[in-house]
Amino acid sequence: MRNKLRLLTPGPTPLPEEVRLALAQDMVHHRKPGFKAVLHRVQEGLQWLFGTTQPVLPLTCSGSGAMNAAVWNLFLPGERVLVVEAGKFGQRWKDIALARSLEATVIDLPWGQAVSPEAIHDALEADPAIRGVLVQASETSTGVLHPVREIAELTRNRDVLLVVDGISAVAISPCPMDEWGVDCLLTGSQKGLMLPPGLAFIALSARAWAAVERHSSPGACPIAYFDLRRERENCLKDQTLFTPAINLLNGLDVSLRLFRERGLGEIYRKQWALTQLTRTAVRSLGLELLVQKRYTWGLTSILVPAGLDGQRLLQIAADAYGVVMAGGQDHLKGRIVRLGHMGHVDFADVLAGLYALRQAFKACGGHTASRDYLEAGLAAYEQALDPRSVPGEEPERI
Amino acid sequence: MRNKLRLLTPGPTPLPEEVRLALAQDMVHHRKPGFKAVLHRVQEGLQWLFGTTQPVLPLTCSGSGAMNAAVWNLFLPGERVLVVEAGKFGQRWKDIALARSLEATVIDLPWGQAVSPEAIHDALEADPAIRGVLVQASETSTGVLHPVREIAELTRNRDVLLVVDGISAVAISPCPMDEWGVDCLLTGSQKGLMLPPGLAFIALSARAWAAVERHSSPGACPIAYFDLRRERENCLKDQTLFTPAINLLNGLDVSLRLFRERGLGEIYRKQWALTQLTRTAVRSLGLELLVQKRYTWGLTSILVPAGLDGQRLLQIAADAYGVVMAGGQDHLKGRIVRLGHMGHVDFADVLAGLYALRQAFKACGGHTASRDYLEAGLAAYEQALDPRSVPGEEPERI
Repeated sequence: MRNKLRLLTPGPTPLPEEVRLALAQDMVHHRKPGFKAVLHRVQEGLQWLFGTTQPVLPLTCSGSGAMNAAVWNLFLPGERVLVVEAGKFGQRWKDIALARSLEATVIDLPWGQAVSPEAIHDALEADPAIRGVLVQASETSTGVLHPVREIAELTRNRDVLLVVDGISAVAISPCPMDEWGVDCLLTGSQKGLMLPPGLAFIALSARAWAAVERHSSPGACPIAYFDLRRERENCLKDQTLFTPAINLLNGLDVSLRLFRERGLGEIYRKQWALTQLTRTAVRSLGLELLVQKRYTWGLTSILVPAGLDGQRLLQIAADAYGVVMAGGQDHLKGRIVRLGHMGHVDFADVLAGLYALRQAFKACGGHTASRDYLEAGLAAYEQALDPRSVPGEEPERI
Repeated sequence: MRNKLRLLTPGPTPLPEEVRLALAQDMVHHRKPGFKAVLHRVQEGLQWLFGTTQPVLPLTCSGSGAMNAAVWNLFLPGERVLVVEAGKFGQRWKDIALARSLEATVIDLPWGQAVSPEAIHDALEADPAIRGVLVQASETSTGVLHPVREIAELTRNRDVLLVVDGISAVAISPCPMDEWGVDCLLTGSQKGLMLPPGLAFIALSARAWAAVERHSSPGACPIAYFDLRRERENCLKDQTLFTPAINLLNGLDVSLRLFRERGLGEIYRKQWALTQLTRTAVRSLGLELLVQKRYTWGLTSILVPAGLDGQRLLQIAADAYGVVMAGGQDHLKGRIVRLGHMGHVDFADVLAGLYALRQAFKACGGHTASRDYLEAGLAAYEQALDPRSVPGEEPERI
């Protein structure tokens, strides 16, 4: 084959070699001291990453499993929650809430739009019965970054738990749980964490734990597999309730070490810089972005111009250039391209993605404007890496 | 270190090199054709292994997750099930059944004893309201093999679903699902399948699927993460409902290929032969076995003579000989040693285990009888490998 395979989807993401070698290690027993030491180290790293002093519980499941665990542990049937539905994963919150027999007030937004803190404020004011807000930090299906920090300012002084799906946000953009006052933060292994899928992580604030505890025996969570109280008891002994995904935890041990060597500030800055690279180059090409502001730092959604076949475009990029990107989901299928730049991805991977995108657009009969889109993107990238610039603050466009 | 590490626990088990290399492969996207081909191959292999024409659904969770999925999908609150509780995992069936608000009739047996088909027969006759039997094929906590085939003869002609935890049985001893009439068979990845933990597999018979379907909308399973109906829809399209544990499925692709090259008969015979090796050698040493008949083919439970410290014994075996075995659980803690010989384990690993066991017994002040226990064990092993002998039929003891 002429080109290397480049996985630029919003998860799973490419793996660092050090992680891959850890995944290949022969098995050890999960109840013996050697592996307890791994769980202990991993726990310290996860608390650092989540910005919390609470235990961060590793669960052997996908991120969706952790979403189930959050809802089933924190709420009882009949309780009311406010759900932000602005994409496929907001929809998932709603589905899980309904399956748990919760009453759901839904803020239904066009896919591609972030919720405003005002909308949350008004909904909470209108209905004091609301016990929780379910939201994505980053809505992976669109690339929108919801204003978690501002929402937390509304929930932290009310009797309302803020439950945040951080699946495409943790280790990508800041979400310091304790500082912001998030009550539940969860993520999966296959996005920012540079691991294969198969592990999820969830942490609860002190008052979220109190909500779990207030439920009467036999426990807030009738799903034995997702019983967070028993999982916490095990976590405090460097154990897990059930046999965990040992090789993924060995990989996590390595990826957390790599993160700690670099520091959170550098991780977020790199993600921000790759986002600026992508957005600037895409705009230079004369293409439009789905999300104008409040965009995610780990993926960029590009609108497919009317009349072009989005599926064919992805196919060409994969076949001719080895670049695997994702399309849209549900009603955005064929209408957007999602270029993932999270996890173990660097500027050169993104350049390959941008070139493949442009060539595929041309092959599909699309018109792209600039010839120096790569240069323009790289200039924005360098500017974002400059320590004088602040990640999250977009410079004035020239 | 002087000795190699030898993992002889009843799961997790050592991994073949081919599997480890597959685990280390870089990520691909799970919704793209290349990985669909993996899921398709894996599905064929799993159906062959389970002995069923029904889909075998891979779930990203531990075996306990699949036990949750079985109970939540097959039964509705208030329905009655018969639970065989003869060890820690029978207990787990009971806990999950109670969490699902089922009525549970429990056959409570001493740990180390197999249930008799007569006891099942009598319980079913006594209460026609029983809708399901929950049992382990192999009770990993003791090493007992419950008579699944005989139980199936009782359930298949009744309106009773037979739900079998095959976690330490599948790919270790026969349990051909369709032929025997098992309604639900499930297993985990870290036992016979020679993989790390993190995946589980579950298959339902046609009438078990009918039981799932009979439940009214919004579905038999309020746990979205374990919705087997939606999982089956995806499986039939070579997909999974949620992002799966990609690297474990890549490993499974390899382990199933290794199994198919050898054939099921050879796999089971090897397991049986390792069991005969272990049991004969242990008896030659003058030690006693926990299970006299109906014993599992993947582990052997050895009684720790009164007055000896079982925990110290395991510690010596690990420290001095690199052999990691398991102790007992709950009230069997310190009272048994469980020597696992499932998965990627061969006769020489077991010899190392037996020698470590004997030396540890001696170091703890225990008395062991024979000096030719290894020879005796190997003779039994060779006899069991002889094509004229039948796995499962213990020869007359000399």
